[in-house]
Amino acid sequence: MSKRAYNFCAGPAALPEAVLLRAQAELLDWHGKGLSVMEMSHRSDEYVAIAEKAEQDLRDLLAIPSNYKVLFLQGGASQQFAQIPLNLLPEGGVADYVDTGIWSRKSLEEARRFGNVNLAASGKVCNYFDIPAQSEWQLTKGAAYLHYASNETIGGVQFDWVPESAEVPLVVDMSSDILSRPIDVSRYGLIYAGAQKNIGPSGLVVVIVREDLIGHARAACPTMLDYKVAAEHASMYNTPATFSWYLSGLIFEWVKEQGGVAEMERRNRAKQELLYRFIDGSDFYSNPVAPAARSWMNIPFRLADEKLDKAFLAGAEERGLLNLKGHRSVGGMRASIYNAVGLDAVQALVTYMAEFEKERG
Amino acid sequence: MSKRAYNFCAGPAALPEAVLLRAQAELLDWHGKGLSVMEMSHRSDEYVAIAEKAEQDLRDLLAIPSNYKVLFLQGGASQQFAQIPLNLLPEGGVADYVDTGIWSRKSLEEARRFGNVNLAASGKVCNYFDIPAQSEWQLTKGAAYLHYASNETIGGVQFDWVPESAEVPLVVDMSSDILSRPIDVSRYGLIYAGAQKNIGPSGLVVVIVREDLIGHARAACPTMLDYKVAAEHASMYNTPATFSWYLSGLIFEWVKEQGGVAEMERRNRAKQELLYRFIDGSDFYSNPVAPAARSWMNIPFRLADEKLDKAFLAGAEERGLLNLKGHRSVGGMRASIYNAVGLDAVQALVTYMAEFEKERG
Repeated sequence: MSKRAYNFCAGPAALPEAVLLRAQAELLDWHGKGLSVMEMSHRSDEYVAIAEKAEQDLRDLLAIPSNYKVLFLQGGASQQFAQIPLNLLPEGGVADYVDTGIWSRKSLEEARRFGNVNLAASGKVCNYFDIPAQSEWQLTKGAAYLHYASNETIGGVQFDWVPESAEVPLVVDMSSDILSRPIDVSRYGLIYAGAQKNIGPSGLVVVIVREDLIGHARAACPTMLDYKVAAEHASMYNTPATFSWYLSGLIFEWVKEQGGVAEMERRNRAKQELLYRFIDGSDFYSNPVAPAARSWMNIPFRLADEKLDKAFLAGAEERGLLNLKGHRSVGGMRASIYNAVGLDAVQALVTYMAEFEKERG
Repeated sequence: MSKRAYNFCAGPAALPEAVLLRAQAELLDWHGKGLSVMEMSHRSDEYVAIAEKAEQDLRDLLAIPSNYKVLFLQGGASQQFAQIPLNLLPEGGVADYVDTGIWSRKSLEEARRFGNVNLAASGKVCNYFDIPAQSEWQLTKGAAYLHYASNETIGGVQFDWVPESAEVPLVVDMSSDILSRPIDVSRYGLIYAGAQKNIGPSGLVVVIVREDLIGHARAACPTMLDYKVAAEHASMYNTPATFSWYLSGLIFEWVKEQGGVAEMERRNRAKQELLYRFIDGSDFYSNPVAPAARSWMNIPFRLADEKLDKAFLAGAEERGLLNLKGHRSVGGMRASIYNAVGLDAVQALVTYMAEFEKERG
């Protein structure tokens, strides 16, 4: 086997090698049962145990209160953009949305197709390089919910605070920073996260939803998009994405073994500090985001001369530093450093960046 | 590694061992690139090549005409039950549905939530042990489409003919018999199939849809459920189920290597003949389905004395014959013998059934 590369992909993203090794060992014969997890009925005792253990481990990791359901669904966060208003926004009601970048804007635009959306705040005023202070938000009294994205993978902007929403349920797209540090689930009405960053492989979206928000779907909501149906069937109204769910379970186990989300926070803090410090200490590299709003997960940066971008990426790839190209909508570079990307990867990146600057800067 | 069992699960079902071995070998390092397919951006050159090859191989296998799109979506067939009327049934229009068992009834009930459904025919008159002849169907002139399920996994009832629908687009749930024998795609407006039987792992549904049926989604259709959006983005409007898509591609390759769907038909014919002949030649085992409507894929059978069911299943499991228990709604036994279940598995089953009858019958 050739050497595993350092993978800075924004998603689907790097997975812990230990998890992949275990999945590989079990791939044809899970625990001596003579079949792959992929070949198991989702209703078999073995698979139900796998699924329930994954849920319990996630509950343990995030200390999810018992009045929250944990759902393992399909369609990614983008399907949630519709599923949330179809379940939580009554006809004639209003939902507040905060726009801090491409993903929160996408969720807002989709919600508009199903009802009244109030743009409570927008990062546009600061070119999306910062998050507007809550004191400037225009919230709706009696809103059905308040939606925001805790981390914008493309802009590299992240909340380091939780909005106050009083009685209004707080709904958060946590796709790219769930499990990266401790959270207080009880502050939220609904948390959702596409799996392919910090949870597992793509094809799975995890929804953590307070029970009182379940059971209010519109008449026109497809059965498969009704949280009540999913909750009543323990996410098995139909065949779920069994292998993705299993692999996510292996990752939850791995996070627990590593020391849980508190340890993830310690590691992620060190990783982002190393990279931002290096960027800020250089005249050649730059990151435009306001320090307090900088993402720990996705770090976009630019070279002083964009004509060098190609050479930078080619040199990186030669050293096994993959997927550093920035999103096509913003250009430049981006290093995504989720839980499965170790400090060693960030050190290797910084070493390369320093050498490249010395040679070509 | 312990011996691989014979797996008669209805779905998620057995996968070809050769495919699992290849997936296992590539799991940590795909083609020397230093990362798993699960860790690849869906927009990377490598992954796009994987996805496009899978589509092309499926097109080759089924000789899909160029005026059909092939979509790789999430949510399973159950999500299609809503997605089809949301895209194909205009407000005020009528869709014809044929009820031949639990799955076609589920699709019909979901469609009723979105518009007018005409029950064109029902197998209820014959206790779902046969398929009503088309001469008895009550079709709607100018219907938006005519929907049926080519194979009922629970009842073990399968069409061995294609309904005539003239100008009305024919829509078929082919979840459990796609790729089991050649079909003429041009007879259909839309074919859909949950992957977890003859295509690959769960979490993926393949939709083959004629281009003129795309672009008519209702205003209230979630973006993720609009075929036009999926088609325009080559099923990558958001992150698809990348690993399931890849594994399905390996299975398409495997089917091609084996000789394509003509060879699958030859094998499946031999497998079902062996099992039905044995059942029909026994006074101890029985299958209630009319011979012409018997499924090649899912073969339910009963023991003369249901008090022996437990002993039968326990003895089967001891010999590595897994998942023979019938669906909870009908009881008895069921052997699902999809493409990946070889003649050797059916021979082993028949040998066991004969011995069990001799000892306990």
